[in-house]
Amino acid sequence: MTTSGKEFFPEIGKIKYEGKDSKNPYAFRYYDKDLMVGEKTLGKWLKFSIAYWHSFGNISSDPFGKATKALPWLYHNDSVKVAYNKADAAFELMAKLGIDHYCFHDFDLIDEGDDLTESEVRLQIISDYLLEKQNEMGIRPLWGTANLFSHPRYMNGAATNPDFHVLASAGAQVKNALDVSIKLNAENFVFWGGREGYMSIINTSTKIEKENLARFLSVCRDYGRKNGFKGTFFIEPKPMEPCKHQYDYDVETVLGFLYKYKLEKDFKLNVEVNHATLAGHTFEHELQMAYDNNMLGSIDANRGDMQNGWDTDQFPIDIFELTHAMLIILENGGIVDGGVNFDAKTRRDSTDLEDLIIAHIAGMDAFARATIAAYRILTESNYAEWKRNRYQSYSKGLGKDFSDGKLDLEDLKDFALEHGEPLQISGKQERFEQLISMFI
Amino acid sequence: MTTSGKEFFPEIGKIKYEGKDSKNPYAFRYYDKDLMVGEKTLGKWLKFSIAYWHSFGNISSDPFGKATKALPWLYHNDSVKVAYNKADAAFELMAKLGIDHYCFHDFDLIDEGDDLTESEVRLQIISDYLLEKQNEMGIRPLWGTANLFSHPRYMNGAATNPDFHVLASAGAQVKNALDVSIKLNAENFVFWGGREGYMSIINTSTKIEKENLARFLSVCRDYGRKNGFKGTFFIEPKPMEPCKHQYDYDVETVLGFLYKYKLEKDFKLNVEVNHATLAGHTFEHELQMAYDNNMLGSIDANRGDMQNGWDTDQFPIDIFELTHAMLIILENGGIVDGGVNFDAKTRRDSTDLEDLIIAHIAGMDAFARATIAAYRILTESNYAEWKRNRYQSYSKGLGKDFSDGKLDLEDLKDFALEHGEPLQISGKQERFEQLISMFI
Amino acid sequence: MTTSGKEFFPEIGKIKYEGKDSKNPYAFRYYDKDLMVGEKTLGKWLKFSIAYWHSFGNISSDPFGKATKALPWLYHNDSVKVAYNKADAAFELMAKLGIDHYCFHDFDLIDEGDDLTESEVRLQIISDYLLEKQNEMGIRPLWGTANLFSHPRYMNGAATNPDFHVLASAGAQVKNALDVSIKLNAENFVFWGGREGYMSIINTSTKIEKENLARFLSVCRDYGRKNGFKGTFFIEPKPMEPCKHQYDYDVETVLGFLYKYKLEKDFKLNVEVNHATLAGHTFEHELQMAYDNNMLGSIDANRGDMQNGWDTDQFPIDIFELTHAMLIILENGGIVDGGVNFDAKTRRDSTDLEDLIIAHIAGMDAFARATIAAYRILTESNYAEWKRNRYQSYSKGLGKDFSDGKLDLEDLKDFALEHGEPLQISGKQERFEQLISMFI
Amino acid sequence: MTTSGKEFFPEIGKIKYEGKDSKNPYAFRYYDKDLMVGEKTLGKWLKFSIAYWHSFGNISSDPFGKATKALPWLYHNDSVKVAYNKADAAFELMAKLGIDHYCFHDFDLIDEGDDLTESEVRLQIISDYLLEKQNEMGIRPLWGTANLFSHPRYMNGAATNPDFHVLASAGAQVKNALDVSIKLNAENFVFWGGREGYMSIINTSTKIEKENLARFLSVCRDYGRKNGFKGTFFIEPKPMEPCKHQYDYDVETVLGFLYKYKLEKDFKLNVEVNHATLAGHTFEHELQMAYDNNMLGSIDANRGDMQNGWDTDQFPIDIFELTHAMLIILENGGIVDGGVNFDAKTRRDSTDLEDLIIAHIAGMDAFARATIAAYRILTESNYAEWKRNRYQSYSKGLGKDFSDGKLDLEDLKDFALEHGEPLQISGKQERFEQLISMFI
Repeated sequence: MTTSGKEFFPEIGKIKYEGKDSKNPYAFRYYDKDLMVGEKTLGKWLKFSIAYWHSFGNISSDPFGKATKALPWLYHNDSVKVAYNKADAAFELMAKLGIDHYCFHDFDLIDEGDDLTESEVRLQIISDYLLEKQNEMGIRPLWGTANLFSHPRYMNGAATNPDFHVLASAGAQVKNALDVSIKLNAENFVFWGGREGYMSIINTSTKIEKENLARFLSVCRDYGRKNGFKGTFFIEPKPMEPCKHQYDYDVETVLGFLYKYKLEKDFKLNVEVNHATLAGHTFEHELQMAYDNNMLGSIDANRGDMQNGWDTDQFPIDIFELTHAMLIILENGGIVDGGVNFDAKTRRDSTDLEDLIIAHIAGMDAFARATIAAYRILTESNYAEWKRNRYQSYSKGLGKDFSDGKLDLEDLKDFALEHGEPLQISGKQERFEQLISMFI
Repeated sequence: MTTSGKEFFPEIGKIKYEGKDSKNPYAFRYYDKDLMVGEKTLGKWLKFSIAYWHSFGNISSDPFGKATKALPWLYHNDSVKVAYNKADAAFELMAKLGIDHYCFHDFDLIDEGDDLTESEVRLQIISDYLLEKQNEMGIRPLWGTANLFSHPRYMNGAATNPDFHVLASAGAQVKNALDVSIKLNAENFVFWGGREGYMSIINTSTKIEKENLARFLSVCRDYGRKNGFKGTFFIEPKPMEPCKHQYDYDVETVLGFLYKYKLEKDFKLNVEVNHATLAGHTFEHELQMAYDNNMLGSIDANRGDMQNGWDTDQFPIDIFELTHAMLIILENGGIVDGGVNFDAKTRRDSTDLEDLIIAHIAGMDAFARATIAAYRILTESNYAEWKRNRYQSYSKGLGKDFSDGKLDLEDLKDFALEHGEPLQISGKQERFEQLISMFI
Repeated sequence: MTTSGKEFFPEIGKIKYEGKDSKNPYAFRYYDKDLMVGEKTLGKWLKFSIAYWHSFGNISSDPFGKATKALPWLYHNDSVKVAYNKADAAFELMAKLGIDHYCFHDFDLIDEGDDLTESEVRLQIISDYLLEKQNEMGIRPLWGTANLFSHPRYMNGAATNPDFHVLASAGAQVKNALDVSIKLNAENFVFWGGREGYMSIINTSTKIEKENLARFLSVCRDYGRKNGFKGTFFIEPKPMEPCKHQYDYDVETVLGFLYKYKLEKDFKLNVEVNHATLAGHTFEHELQMAYDNNMLGSIDANRGDMQNGWDTDQFPIDIFELTHAMLIILENGGIVDGGVNFDAKTRRDSTDLEDLIIAHIAGMDAFARATIAAYRILTESNYAEWKRNRYQSYSKGLGKDFSDGKLDLEDLKDFALEHGEPLQISGKQERFEQLISMFI
Repeated sequence: MTTSGKEFFPEIGKIKYEGKDSKNPYAFRYYDKDLMVGEKTLGKWLKFSIAYWHSFGNISSDPFGKATKALPWLYHNDSVKVAYNKADAAFELMAKLGIDHYCFHDFDLIDEGDDLTESEVRLQIISDYLLEKQNEMGIRPLWGTANLFSHPRYMNGAATNPDFHVLASAGAQVKNALDVSIKLNAENFVFWGGREGYMSIINTSTKIEKENLARFLSVCRDYGRKNGFKGTFFIEPKPMEPCKHQYDYDVETVLGFLYKYKLEKDFKLNVEVNHATLAGHTFEHELQMAYDNNMLGSIDANRGDMQNGWDTDQFPIDIFELTHAMLIILENGGIVDGGVNFDAKTRRDSTDLEDLIIAHIAGMDAFARATIAAYRILTESNYAEWKRNRYQSYSKGLGKDFSDGKLDLEDLKDFALEHGEPLQISGKQERFEQLISMFI
């Protein structure tokens, strides 16, 4: 079902897997959805999702210039018509790419209305339409979210706004976004704290603001649970931009927050590559920090520029970096709640529609290749064993006793006195690196 | 009492306060120790401490070159004599600067011995000597710590070492360092996780390592408490260097860790300027994060270079930056447990002894001036009121109900529906900035 | 003369100097325009200029949100009326602040037309109006420039665009901008290479692009000179953003470029604080590099955030940083061709008109205070002498011979053999820092 | 010939090429030295060199700890014996790896003597020995250099020292280093300005210092040429560390300097990966800037950590990054004067000798693989053609006229008027990225 009645990407058909020697830009070279990688198919390991905002709404203005992209589905005076067209374009591209999940902010689906009531009506209309398309095509949202940062009212934050009136407006918006997400059977619901932070600490009470944030998340959670939302809530860490400092700085900061405010039962982390690097971490580090606490929810796949200090959200392509990330993901059993959402945009000067399609194909291929490489490292090499062996002293004898909490400081000293200077044990980083590189 | 029997800084006498118009490099221009600033003297607000390692042990080798500094107290073949001399130099400088606290690592006091037993004997000898000098001069340690990073055995970490044998050696060392700290009546005890982190995540189990770290801190705490240590334990966050990633990344990461492992009763934060900036934060941010949780323990005063990505540990001098930090400190009631430790070193090419003295005088003056400025901002201007007023909507009506946990998401929506679009309220950052600058 | 017939800033009159103890936010505390500082007045040292784009055109959308600022002069359907209003607002603010220079891009003055011809007509109209106002009020442009980055056609660069057609369009635009600048008696003309650089080096021939840039600048220069432009052309370095890499990276990169293409006779540098810091340099470093080559043209006054990797363009306020910059400027004789342009914007959430005024007052005061402090350091302290003395060995004997090019490598060796190991001479950075801080 | 009479790496024989499926850590998987890649063998494209300092002298102390590495060839009380052993170890490893070039600082070869004369004697002795070994084994230095940064006398710079006496000492040292380099038939000679820069700009005359640097380089060049040195002199850019700012900041800064002081005939650039990234550039960017001026001399192969702001000098392993670099190198005809020097060190905790060997093997393999991939991209894909076509508008018609310097600004405007708005042309970065990834 389409209302537009036209194809937006007529030049391509369904993208097929052709194998790694293919040079066809419109084919997968690694992403064979049904390939078994251990106990799961590639398609299950990598539950891909498209990002409604970047791929279907972003016309690429930037702080130094106007929009460059003429997306054909946006050309209509009527908001509802535009929303239908956008949905048609999105679902067409998903079908052609073989992606059956999407992620959205409330007002990606349809423009915000002039007031809350009009916005509700609009969300009602477009979600009816999307639900039909979903059912027809076997597609559902990986997650929904509310855009609490674009409207000027949020210039000083939403849940952390010094003005209760703004916080209440944000609450109203989340309620509607949750309603839509439940209706559309979204698997999860995300909070990205776009402007939850400060521009300057000199005019800010961080304590009040963070407590309000916690309370806000609690009431949202309660509402969701009361209304049948079974999925997981995600917080998406980002350290800065647009704010000078954002409260959801990185995974460990968010974890501390969630535990402090007892939100850890319902919330997990949505980890984005570019947000990790903006925070001074590798993506794999952020993943590991989440996994160490059983709190990895989902990932936002993209790529930052290590030398540009803002969110470039480029499509992922770096097979070296991705293999290291997939190694962590596979070692820890994969992504349970969420999936791999392409929170990525083609460059401002990539103005052909073709660029959008190719970016997705190349990104999916890069993830598939990395998954296969990581799996081989874990199953065909000594990697896992070497890593485990580094810690074997804690599995036996007094090391185990220490791990079991049976030793005190005097015991440690006695051991040290008795055993003298420890033997030197190389960390063997280069050997590990060589091993990994054998499989990339 | 001195064993060296000589003055190491004969060219200076006791540094006096001469007022802000003085151009005498050997006088304080702002640091009038007994000046009342509100209810406390400057000397109480700023419990200064010298750093034994930088000021008396650091001969300024760097990764690209050999030592440049010929510190006269280090010239002796005998470790004990050197240690006596060093103590004499340190106490002489403290007396002349009017500083009555110092901070030390175990093997700052005296060189590590060839084995644990010899190290113990040495620590015994030098602590006897220091205790006498302390009593004579009314000086005591602000905090002690164990150096768990310089010896090669710690190349892969101490409490997070993959080898239990190394962890046990670290335990033995902390036991002795705690014993010395208790004997010397140290007010607090610090853990700086010098190499607690990883060089590469590919050969590392962060989960095991952090759990071991938590357990290690617990047994140290237990030992201290059992043996009469009444002070506070501090963790000193640092994000990187020498490790690629250090577990005590920043204040919020450490807070999350302390709460997770239930260490928050005994541990607080020792926040260092340069470590804050290496982590991508301002110093004032890190202070605020600690205060928001009543976890600010002490500060390490120095100054980083925002454009050099390593710990430069320069002496503090930037009155603009310091006023912002002191504003946070005064707003939050000052530093309760610890003080202001000059974890700062003169540049490698500042090779005159004079440079060391002047660096301290200028640093103390800069802090004093910032304290006075911050106090005036808080008491003579509208600053505090303006800041408070930004949040007044949470002190009354439904805003207060929200703060008190009485509203749910539907209530927020009802409020939003009823009240319509919020009025725009400027954040007024420039007005705040202007106000602060009026008092610097 | 105004066409709007109204005051846009009715709440303020002419801002007066009230002295440093004034707490009036609408008064200068340091900026006494006529105060003699050495041989020049403060007003001459600091030839302030307002930035037409930030202060009168910027409504503060950002990559994550819509415009927040409702500037009253922009509310009209007719481009010409808006342009008249904007001019009225700008000239009113300049008069009230006592600023008699402004800087503009072509399409700051009036919106770009639908085609080149319409744009020309519009520029003709608005420049007539501005010229009248200028004459009436004794105001003139510090510099003009052409906006070669906002229009989508420039998405891949202007003078460095791979497509000659775009380069030609840029040429047409510069011609008109130069014509307007000459007509308005602009003192200088700027090139900021907004998108002259690359998004990715993999699709870019940097060699062709930079050669085209040089040729483009040459033909612009030739046109200007032929048509009576007597001022200096400026290049404004910036390292990145919006491009991944911008060719005018920093002062030294631009200097190399200017010398290589023999443009150094007509071009100098316009150095911006925030661009300096984005390039990994201090502002004072960039100033010094320009002065060392007699190539400092003008400065763009603002302030970056050292921890946010994009151009925040905040208003300057940091007295410590500014004193260091003014020290370089005064040591080198001041700014000859240009002035001090406030290329700064109030924060996105500073939405009161008052904020704009206060930001300017505070920024002017900060510069004035820094100028006075720097002057005192240079005239009342040993600073200049100490610095000169460090290099005295090159003013006499063999050191001078070396400076004069009379020694060869064997001579150096003979000297070294004869004189043995050099004495160690401290760099005394802390002593210099203390001295400077005595005057801030 | 060895004086030590023993093998230092007895556990390995000559490393062989075994093909990409080999999992033998002591074999090459891609580096088949004799494989023809276009018109040259892999061995010719990649003239590998070992770094005497990192691999044979570095015992891995760091700013936070003591040396960890017990290199067996260093254990002797006699400097000459140590030097012989070191040479034996170095030449043994080169032979086993199939590397026939090495790079050295003067005092890598043998410890500096107590005075200049003793140092000369020592250099004489060790260079005799090395010359014999070179002749026997067909090995020669890729380049030599003088270490002008480790000795305390250079704490304020060598050629840029404020004290002429130090500059003269540096001259003496370079003379000897040049003599040794000529004697050993070194292909090139490098200047890395270790401490040529400043710790603080407030006590520094950058103008005097840079002029002295230029003069110093000139007299060194003159001496070399007069004494038969036929190779190229290289400057190795680095932006910072140990200095706050180093004058040889990056490639373009150095180029500007070389042209300004007319040194460009004899000097080229030695570009290091980690120095590029410290300067905020990619390695490929720095290579391209050098090539665009025919000034690429040689490369220092290693890998930085984008999130740690100091020189980590890790061994190269990232196939994605290296392919992009080799693409630039191959597009520009390869490295003419120099080669690929492993200026890389195993991590401080990689304490097995095996780690050093494996690091080299893996690094050589990574470069070989990248070279092959880049060659295929250039010869088997449309990459070069696509890139060329982007600029085709400058090869014909008025675009060509512009390139040929035949158009003025009015001509550009006429063209723009006549042709109207340019068509939008996508930059197609994602398509380029996909293409490249097909060959990695």
